[in-house]
Amino acid sequence: MSADLAQLVTLIAQRARAASLVLATTPTTRKDAALLRLAELLPAASAELLAANAKDLAAAEANGLAKHEIERLTLTPAKLDHLAESVRQVAALPDPVGTVLEDWTRPNGIHIRKRRVPIGVIGIIYEARPNVTIDCAILCLKSGNAAILRGGKEIFNTNTAFAALITQALADTGLPADAVQLIPTTDRAALNTLLKLDTLIHCIIPRGGESLIRFVAQNSTIPVIKHYTGVCFVYVDKAADLTMAENILINSKTQRPGVCNTAEQLLVHADIAATALPRLASALAAKGVQLRCDPASLAILQSAASSSQLSALKSQLSAASAADYTAEFLDLILAVRVVPSIDEAIATINRDSSGHTESIITADAEAAARFQLAIDSAVVAWNASTRFNDGFEFGFGAEIGISTDRLHARGPMGLNELCSYKYVIDGTGQVRA
Amino acid sequence: MSADLAQLVTLIAQRARAASLVLATTPTTRKDAALLRLAELLPAASAELLAANAKDLAAAEANGLAKHEIERLTLTPAKLDHLAESVRQVAALPDPVGTVLEDWTRPNGIHIRKRRVPIGVIGIIYEARPNVTIDCAILCLKSGNAAILRGGKEIFNTNTAFAALITQALADTGLPADAVQLIPTTDRAALNTLLKLDTLIHCIIPRGGESLIRFVAQNSTIPVIKHYTGVCFVYVDKAADLTMAENILINSKTQRPGVCNTAEQLLVHADIAATALPRLASALAAKGVQLRCDPASLAILQSAASSSQLSALKSQLSAASAADYTAEFLDLILAVRVVPSIDEAIATINRDSSGHTESIITADAEAAARFQLAIDSAVVAWNASTRFNDGFEFGFGAEIGISTDRLHARGPMGLNELCSYKYVIDGTGQVRA
Repeated sequence: MSADLAQLVTLIAQRARAASLVLATTPTTRKDAALLRLAELLPAASAELLAANAKDLAAAEANGLAKHEIERLTLTPAKLDHLAESVRQVAALPDPVGTVLEDWTRPNGIHIRKRRVPIGVIGIIYEARPNVTIDCAILCLKSGNAAILRGGKEIFNTNTAFAALITQALADTGLPADAVQLIPTTDRAALNTLLKLDTLIHCIIPRGGESLIRFVAQNSTIPVIKHYTGVCFVYVDKAADLTMAENILINSKTQRPGVCNTAEQLLVHADIAATALPRLASALAAKGVQLRCDPASLAILQSAASSSQLSALKSQLSAASAADYTAEFLDLILAVRVVPSIDEAIATINRDSSGHTESIITADAEAAARFQLAIDSAVVAWNASTRFNDGFEFGFGAEIGISTDRLHARGPMGLNELCSYKYVIDGTGQVRA
Repeated sequence: MSADLAQLVTLIAQRARAASLVLATTPTTRKDAALLRLAELLPAASAELLAANAKDLAAAEANGLAKHEIERLTLTPAKLDHLAESVRQVAALPDPVGTVLEDWTRPNGIHIRKRRVPIGVIGIIYEARPNVTIDCAILCLKSGNAAILRGGKEIFNTNTAFAALITQALADTGLPADAVQLIPTTDRAALNTLLKLDTLIHCIIPRGGESLIRFVAQNSTIPVIKHYTGVCFVYVDKAADLTMAENILINSKTQRPGVCNTAEQLLVHADIAATALPRLASALAAKGVQLRCDPASLAILQSAASSSQLSALKSQLSAASAADYTAEFLDLILAVRVVPSIDEAIATINRDSSGHTESIITADAEAAARFQLAIDSAVVAWNASTRFNDGFEFGFGAEIGISTDRLHARGPMGLNELCSYKYVIDGTGQVRA
């Protein structure tokens, strides 16, 4: 039984490898034709897709999943339209494959081109969101990669219905059906086999919660690109414009508090803390943000809250615990500290941040440059919201996630980042001396 | 005891992380000053270095190591001069850090720069070659990375002496001493601890034999960049110039048969096999290369060898086993096959090669383009030797190895490939809509 499962997963990977060699030389027009066919099939198959989703939803209710979890699983006709539109958008994006990234000629006359090529076979391990099957399949297909998809058990029927549609779109347009394959079981043993097939699969991308990503990273012999969530900082420098600071802080913290590029930590320069903190805190409190404060900021804010104008602030304040200073709240909570200098701000961030996204608010260009040089994070913004660390906001058109790794891809990961490269050498008979 | 060791290794990694933050903002001139100081110290300390090496050599003899293994361990004054020269050469190379790789402005006015930065902390796991400690230390230092070095036990005294010199060069020029640290034990438990410190170390590069690399890849939770050796092909197309084919084949196979970019496999198009094979085979035989032949090539060559002119060839011929077709001989042995078409050559290579380096010899530009498009290897050469897959030959000036991975770095890995990037955003108060 387990041997059969291992054999099945290996066979899937072998087929993916074969398909990847075909995809790597498939012209853009043919890949786009498959995508556009899929965009047609999605609304046409809405009855089957919603029926499959209904099975998953019924099981979720029977298993007592929380309401917000069930909502996340739920497909609707509107979500299907949105998915079809995103497929068309990916078809319209430029093909990353074949671009010459660099080229040069050596003194001996050989001409070297560094040419962008697909990575090969990509395994995507994900949890219970219905759009991920389509998102990952289309990004891999557009970038010329074969995809092996392993979704969560809560959404298995929906995923299976989506995968059948993808297979049909590939068949209808003459592309290899094995270009996108769903592992037809959510048995953990199948995943464990998959993560060791390092001669057939070239990259694993886990999408989901931290425990899933950690499990994959610890059990895979295939390179993994990790998309952990973020402990992002906003630092309000002594030379900050406070109106700008307020706008950026409110956007960074409250626009979508449950995502990885939301701010979780606020540092304020001591020189302006007495005036800046009450203003920023009351704006945050008005949005329902709770503040976990260090002693210095707590003293300033409690004193401010004792005045009648800012009394509403009082209920939002509490003393921070040590754990709060490295916490990813993913909620309307913000840890607040006062720092004596920009150097201390930099040291604090490089120690306590997760290296995802940080922002400095200052009118001092020199301070900004110093911050952007010294901060060791994927995205370092000056006078802009942390929420800009995002593939769409970067203009990538589509993204498979935001990498928290330093190798291969860092920050937003779009079609270009789903590619590797190879060197093509043109000679006229040169040999090595 | 084991807890102490784990603590020691963790402390080394914490210090490396702190040093890496300093190195990331250290100007080029200061990094180069440390390198030039090291180049001075190397010849000056030759007595201590040779004495340390003598201890390792004595132990190697006592342990009965083979003569070629002992030779590999041996330091000489000439090798020290060569090492000092390579340190000066790395100092003279351009600093990769800070280069703006791309920059663009979004419709909302934010300006995004993709800026090259060091990876951070790099762990190098290597075996018994005395130059690797210096090579890796200087490449990491120049690229702004902190290095943790873990060498083999056969060369432990030599490595320790080199590490002391590096520490002195760093101290003499005011750089953090923890920028380069040698793990002061070859205990396997220390390595196992090291490979799990994924919050402190950002990249592991194993240098050595396949079993070392495989051990590291399977036990590391830190991303590993692998430098496996190669099963490289030369394909002689029906439109090949045979003089060129002979030169390139001889160079690819015999110039340095023990290295990863040497040719191990020859494919010859059936249309020219009867004329090309005897010529190529006798040139190879004259260099002492043994040929392991498929039935078609064996028939042609045995018939040719029966003539008086090529009788010397006879003793070099044998029938290939199935294993020979995917073998990395690293010796004066070549597997030979006849293929009916370029498509069959491509399919054979994509199935049997290790994806390192392949070369097509042809006067037909269309055939070359097809080959270069479809072959799924790091380097695909047309009318040039496989031996050009090398950092120096690419003009990188120095290399830490030749990556056989597809993520982050593929092919020769120089200073640029020892870097990651970060995005620096300049705004004027933009928030996300």
